[in-house]
Amino acid sequence: MHLRVVLVQPLYEGNVGSVARAMKNFGFHDLVMVNPCRIEDFGLAMASHARDVLQMSHSYTSLSEAISGANLVVGSTGKRLDTAQHHLRLHLRVPCLSPGELAEKLQGMEGTVALLLGREDCGLCSEELALCDMLISIPTSQEYPVMNLSHSAAVLFYELSRKKEQHCSSLEMARRESLDLLAERSRALLHEVRYPRHKVDYTLLMLRRILGRAKLTEREARTLLGLIKNIRWRIEATDSGSAGGKKQQEKDA
Amino acid sequence: MHLRVVLVQPLYEGNVGSVARAMKNFGFHDLVMVNPCRIEDFGLAMASHARDVLQMSHSYTSLSEAISGANLVVGSTGKRLDTAQHHLRLHLRVPCLSPGELAEKLQGMEGTVALLLGREDCGLCSEELALCDMLISIPTSQEYPVMNLSHSAAVLFYELSRKKEQHCSSLEMARRESLDLLAERSRALLHEVRYPRHKVDYTLLMLRRILGRAKLTEREARTLLGLIKNIRWRIEATDSGSAGGKKQQEKDA
Repeated sequence: MHLRVVLVQPLYEGNVGSVARAMKNFGFHDLVMVNPCRIEDFGLAMASHARDVLQMSHSYTSLSEAISGANLVVGSTGKRLDTAQHHLRLHLRVPCLSPGELAEKLQGMEGTVALLLGREDCGLCSEELALCDMLISIPTSQEYPVMNLSHSAAVLFYELSRKKEQHCSSLEMARRESLDLLAERSRALLHEVRYPRHKVDYTLLMLRRILGRAKLTEREARTLLGLIKNIRWRIEATDSGSAGGKKQQEKDA
Repeated sequence: MHLRVVLVQPLYEGNVGSVARAMKNFGFHDLVMVNPCRIEDFGLAMASHARDVLQMSHSYTSLSEAISGANLVVGSTGKRLDTAQHHLRLHLRVPCLSPGELAEKLQGMEGTVALLLGREDCGLCSEELALCDMLISIPTSQEYPVMNLSHSAAVLFYELSRKKEQHCSSLEMARRESLDLLAERSRALLHEVRYPRHKVDYTLLMLRRILGRAKLTEREARTLLGLIKNIRWRIEATDSGSAGGKKQQEKDA
């Protein structure tokens, strides 16, 4: 499993440097950023002996570029989202994994996991969360749940690194293209079965999260694609008149 | 279990403030220090909403005063101690626990645990380690094992707090009846779409495994049931002749 750390619009160079240090402490080196602040002397000082991680990092202007090619996109959210921000509720109806649960799910996985860490002041916005296959949250105190960015990062890296050596069996994870195709075909299916329009986005997001949590293999993704194809084909066949339907019935008999 | 965090001669006020913040994030409030640096504006800024932890902290001139009354004294050491400093070897002959092992050992314990965190540059000295009942070390990368003081603190607080409360996923898990119904309706759907008979059992088992791994919520199970109902209804409507299909198309238009 390869971990790509994605800092979305980090505001303080000190935090960026600190995250780089924590990455290297736990054996991770792939850092990408979306519209980051400028990294100058203080950021480099905080990186300490992990300046190389900063120097090798890439910056992008959009999140979709930053996560391109990742097999799994994991978004980290703070508890503060549970209550106040109503527009984010939709995304939090899905179970939010703990770091330990995530580490367990990633056991034996091959491929790239993009771990998204949001802005220091307001985290990831709802559009960014919608791009995530899984959400994780560090269990914190109710009294003061807002962690420093690099502290959250350190805890997550600690969890993700500590089980790395134990895994034995490795199955091929579903490829990004297969997952994207699955999302596209699911949307087409919902359209074809005339699923209530106002529920389409919610249901697609829910499906994505279910499949994300299940950590689909490539084989499973292909089987699901086959199943959807079968359903759509059956609807089209019957739709195009009873002749098509009958022809198929005869073929099957 | 009551945790007392003991910073031994911390050199940088920013780290002290950061440790205070991480303490409060995980529900700990008792901070004591031995000969600390001066805590001024930057330290307070790093503490953010945990200034009260700094304000209530106590400073001592000796470690023995700082750990007075503790039932258990735990010293945290970095990997760097394993190799170079020969005079510290003696103390490392005792098994050095991982944070997770420590958390396990402290389960259900009552009393005060003093957790010692050493200087940023050289950790705890041999006399200080000699006062410890247990040593712990965070497993880090060989390449760069030296963590920032507040990062180590955050990882340790995370481990020590995480079994105290269950995670945010207090969402209603899918009921057994709903999962059984889902299996039954999926089978009916495969039958209706004339899914290749020899693949039916395999695909149903695969679906069950995917949903099982995703640990479905009751709400998600109900949405999936609704989706299947929608698809089956659509197929039946078109199957029962183009009249039904047309009627539905008109209704939708």
